[in-house]
Amino acid sequence: MYANDGFRELDRDECLRLLARAPIGRVVHTRRALPAVLPVNFALDEGGVVVLRTSAASELARAVDGAVVAFEADAVDAARHSGWSVVVTGTATVVTDPAVHTRLARTGPRSWAPAPEEVFVRIEPELVTGRELVGGRSLYGCLDVGA
Amino acid sequence: MYANDGFRELDRDECLRLLARAPIGRVVHTRRALPAVLPVNFALDEGGVVVLRTSAASELARAVDGAVVAFEADAVDAARHSGWSVVVTGTATVVTDPAVHTRLARTGPRSWAPAPEEVFVRIEPELVTGRELVGGRSLYGCLDVGA
Repeated sequence: MYANDGFRELDRDECLRLLARAPIGRVVHTRRALPAVLPVNFALDEGGVVVLRTSAASELARAVDGAVVAFEADAVDAARHSGWSVVVTGTATVVTDPAVHTRLARTGPRSWAPAPEEVFVRIEPELVTGRELVGGRSLYGCLDVGA
Repeated sequence: MYANDGFRELDRDECLRLLARAPIGRVVHTRRALPAVLPVNFALDEGGVVVLRTSAASELARAVDGAVVAFEADAVDAARHSGWSVVVTGTATVVTDPAVHTRLARTGPRSWAPAPEEVFVRIEPELVTGRELVGGRSLYGCLDVGA
């Protein structure tokens, strides 16, 4: 990235604080060899682990189990050209440990519409990156972690 | 997807109408062999082509040129459990035709912070999918095009 492109890189703690306030995020994965992105509600577990809750029968659970995925949340004010974006990248796994499942059933995200059989998906925060837009600066420059 | 999971699939015209109203979207691509997602402002060209404008030097332009990417926009009301999500999937290409570049400079997206040398990126709408959330139904069920 450019040193002077007018955005502020967020540290891991700032990223996780913003993420904790976000009502939804987006799971980025591969589906049938194509890039796929799916808005979901979520919760943050200890250490910044992103926890999703979905039907055991969902394609989401099958598609991401064992895969490296990205989880993105943002809040952008297009009028003010300001906001933030946080991306957590890491391996997603369906929780199979009954004790962890029981704990997440208490502390994890609530289903918006409970399914007969639900599973939790954990996304390990192997890489946590975030950018804060500075009003009036390029959304690309502000948010492209690689620009 | 399930026939009775309580969401409404949007047709291509509905998807493009919603997309036309979205202030920003998210480019989903692969960066250094990892899933990557980047919020960007954009414009819709004829036929539902998504047009981005970025610095010729940006990693975005290099990363997506010639690649199949997904472009996602959504509006979700977490309190009402309602909203919509649209995903355009197709090949991204950096515009090299001077005539097209000139036209897009007039009709394409405005830079939030113009760079010395800018390029336009076109994303062909080879696949356009969208879901409207029905209040109170699962965000997964509502938005997972594959669920």
